[in-house]
Amino acid sequence: MRERKTPAQSTATLSQVMVPYDANQYGNVHGGVIMRLMDEVAFVAASRHTHRNVVTVCIDSLSFENPVRIGDVVALKATLIYVGKTSMEIEVYVETERLKTGKIFPVATACLTMVALNEEGRPVEIPQLIPQTEKEKKKYAEAKSRREQKLRKLTTEDTELTENF
Amino acid sequence: MRERKTPAQSTATLSQVMVPYDANQYGNVHGGVIMRLMDEVAFVAASRHTHRNVVTVCIDSLSFENPVRIGDVVALKATLIYVGKTSMEIEVYVETERLKTGKIFPVATACLTMVALNEEGRPVEIPQLIPQTEKEKKKYAEAKSRREQKLRKLTTEDTELTENF
Amino acid sequence: MRERKTPAQSTATLSQVMVPYDANQYGNVHGGVIMRLMDEVAFVAASRHTHRNVVTVCIDSLSFENPVRIGDVVALKATLIYVGKTSMEIEVYVETERLKTGKIFPVATACLTMVALNEEGRPVEIPQLIPQTEKEKKKYAEAKSRREQKLRKLTTEDTELTENF
Amino acid sequence: MRERKTPAQSTATLSQVMVPYDANQYGNVHGGVIMRLMDEVAFVAASRHTHRNVVTVCIDSLSFENPVRIGDVVALKATLIYVGKTSMEIEVYVETERLKTGKIFPVATACLTMVALNEEGRPVEIPQLIPQTEKEKKKYAEAKSRREQKLRKLTTEDTELTENF
Amino acid sequence: MRERKTPAQSTATLSQVMVPYDANQYGNVHGGVIMRLMDEVAFVAASRHTHRNVVTVCIDSLSFENPVRIGDVVALKATLIYVGKTSMEIEVYVETERLKTGKIFPVATACLTMVALNEEGRPVEIPQLIPQTEKEKKKYAEAKSRREQKLRKLTTEDTELTENF
Amino acid sequence: MRERKTPAQSTATLSQVMVPYDANQYGNVHGGVIMRLMDEVAFVAASRHTHRNVVTVCIDSLSFENPVRIGDVVALKATLIYVGKTSMEIEVYVETERLKTGKIFPVATACLTMVALNEEGRPVEIPQLIPQTEKEKKKYAEAKSRREQKLRKLTTEDTELTENF
Repeated sequence: MRERKTPAQSTATLSQVMVPYDANQYGNVHGGVIMRLMDEVAFVAASRHTHRNVVTVCIDSLSFENPVRIGDVVALKATLIYVGKTSMEIEVYVETERLKTGKIFPVATACLTMVALNEEGRPVEIPQLIPQTEKEKKKYAEAKSRREQKLRKLTTEDTELTENF
Repeated sequence: MRERKTPAQSTATLSQVMVPYDANQYGNVHGGVIMRLMDEVAFVAASRHTHRNVVTVCIDSLSFENPVRIGDVVALKATLIYVGKTSMEIEVYVETERLKTGKIFPVATACLTMVALNEEGRPVEIPQLIPQTEKEKKKYAEAKSRREQKLRKLTTEDTELTENF
Repeated sequence: MRERKTPAQSTATLSQVMVPYDANQYGNVHGGVIMRLMDEVAFVAASRHTHRNVVTVCIDSLSFENPVRIGDVVALKATLIYVGKTSMEIEVYVETERLKTGKIFPVATACLTMVALNEEGRPVEIPQLIPQTEKEKKKYAEAKSRREQKLRKLTTEDTELTENF
Repeated sequence: MRERKTPAQSTATLSQVMVPYDANQYGNVHGGVIMRLMDEVAFVAASRHTHRNVVTVCIDSLSFENPVRIGDVVALKATLIYVGKTSMEIEVYVETERLKTGKIFPVATACLTMVALNEEGRPVEIPQLIPQTEKEKKKYAEAKSRREQKLRKLTTEDTELTENF
Repeated sequence: MRERKTPAQSTATLSQVMVPYDANQYGNVHGGVIMRLMDEVAFVAASRHTHRNVVTVCIDSLSFENPVRIGDVVALKATLIYVGKTSMEIEVYVETERLKTGKIFPVATACLTMVALNEEGRPVEIPQLIPQTEKEKKKYAEAKSRREQKLRKLTTEDTELTENF
Repeated sequence: MRERKTPAQSTATLSQVMVPYDANQYGNVHGGVIMRLMDEVAFVAASRHTHRNVVTVCIDSLSFENPVRIGDVVALKATLIYVGKTSMEIEVYVETERLKTGKIFPVATACLTMVALNEEGRPVEIPQLIPQTEKEKKKYAEAKSRREQKLRKLTTEDTELTENF
């Protein structure tokens, strides 16, 4: 029988001090650096859920709210919200703490889809996700409906984006 | 009068050899590294259009098709497809060349929204985008309609995503 | 009156995925990389206690127990155990999680002394530390007695270590 | 029969945004960083010509004209100008674009010699270079004569440079 | 019979220009960066003494005297002062040169213990250390007595530090 | 009167352990990494001679002899061999030590020309170089004659290399 896990069993947090290496020439941390960390924290959550090699398939609706400064402590949290047969939807939330004042600012949120691969690099079945709390159940239902909508759209539209280049 | 520019005037390409520093423990380049480069090439295109400091506001529908390996030459291309009063929509396309064989693979596509800021860090009016080719005109129209849809949605729904954390 | 804070108010955690950049040629993460992170997490705890620029003065008894591998998630925790007039003693504990198995190993422990500096770079008075739990009180007392012993030794011995080079 | 290729078939371009990591303490990008990128773009061109492992043997007359600043987009171009039995001469040209103004400055030029190696690390025969345009033919002839001059000099002089250390 | 080596046979020096990458947000080089380099130079000395894979076991009494600035040349020196059956005590001394003035400042000193490992990762017997000069003999005797004291303490006290977390 | 210095007063050495970050996909350290270090050691020697900001103008005849491996200790030495009014010729020699065996291999040699700049970024007069040993005097004379030859060539030929691109 397929293994079952709760969202809490794989929730991941990463936190890191931002160094000058991560800055652009305007003194702020590059959006791209934050994206890389968001991918990393989602990677940890997906690894904990599957104990497999996992790869990012796509990212939906990443949005930035506040800039990160050099010397800030950036904290990222990743939680699985939906699991299909081989893929996972992972919500990532980022905030930053200005150490001199102790103030905390929201930085970014995103939803990533990751897939677990077997030794030959093919998608492989993964444990089911069993939402526990009310919020987890609501997010699970929303993600499921978004997914079904997306699949319907994919079958009716021509979406060969790369052909347009 | 507001300045007018064509998409071709700001189109940007970056290309880079992937080094072991960029790899994860499975020998592939981290999705997060590619994301960082996608942000960077969009930054260059947006800078060329505005000659201003620009920041990433959000990313829609980033998707990955093929992995990148150490030693590959990754090439990224960013083109403005729509410009509002202060924000730009930028399409980014990534491909990778395996040097030993010369074969080229599509890697990822995404659509980023960036905003230009003035010296005080506030959004500032930017040059208009005047699509020239048929493809450019089609993409412009699509982006415009996506944008209007999104705005309608934002005014009717409660979308305080961060509150859910 | 001098400000008073509990150890819990400044406790800091950092966690990070170890990438190939951090490895030595034997596939393990360099001890020196772990030391750098230990310094960083102590820096965060000391910053939270003081909201000042802080610098490391010395490290006592850093010891390593298990190696860290590429792909591990390393987690570090720093807690203030003693505070003098301008200096802090900070205990740092490091553990590592092997993502493929979910197993966790202790990696290293150390005790760092940091000093807060004012704008001119001179040591400055910092908030008092008020231990709350039994464990915190025990550690505080031990650190205080270690410190007094050290000071007695410093006044009776010739410790110009650098002269010996 | 030995394979034949034109210079255009292997011409390589790399372009990259310069980040604070690449700067010296005077705010300019280190000459050494530019050298590393010049080696990299020559590596790509030589790889495209040979589809082999290639190594740099020597560099003749690298000269710098203008400094590169943090935030610039540096563009490098490498073209094969001469091919012997196992070695290639590659001309590299570097320029930089200041994004805020759109101005472009020449940065450096150099001529690198690279050799293709087989699996055992020994030099291996590579495709011939067939110059097409007038400029390509002129450069080919010049490189050939420089090479013959150098060989004559090597056989008549004592050039054990390293012995002088 | 067990091989015998003098301290001079393995003494190691490293020196490096500090780049912006190594700095914290106050313009000084992170203590953690210096620690990483101290570990590295001790690694070189221990490798020269043993020609084996070596790992850091612990660090005693690392202390900092002066900060290092971006653009400084940092020089590190490591000397073996005591060798047991499988472990070595290595003294590391760090100084920094401000290039603009030529002035040199002491930065840090520490004593590291390293162990040599065989192919299976187990401690392995290493060459004896034969101190030659008066200073070397004095340091050897001191290290030996410190070691014996430490061992006596370990057998009489409860030192499960990690249990306290 | 113009200050006078000997070559020994500015001779610089750097040495560094090569980490996986520095490797290409064939396990060897990139030629470009070595070039960057050669530039750095020449920078230190030129800084010691002038106590000024110095920049690399050109590199003559850089040649590679042996590859560098991950885990090697690379040592670089830079010596001034000739000084004009505002520029210096600096000879750089690189060797590498394989720590597992203790064997040392020559890696590369090059001759760099650097110029000292004043606060406005203009070339500025620097101390004279007074060769002391027979070898220093010979190298000084050779460099002087090479320089005169080069100047003669520059005035009779059309050398606008960049125009050819």
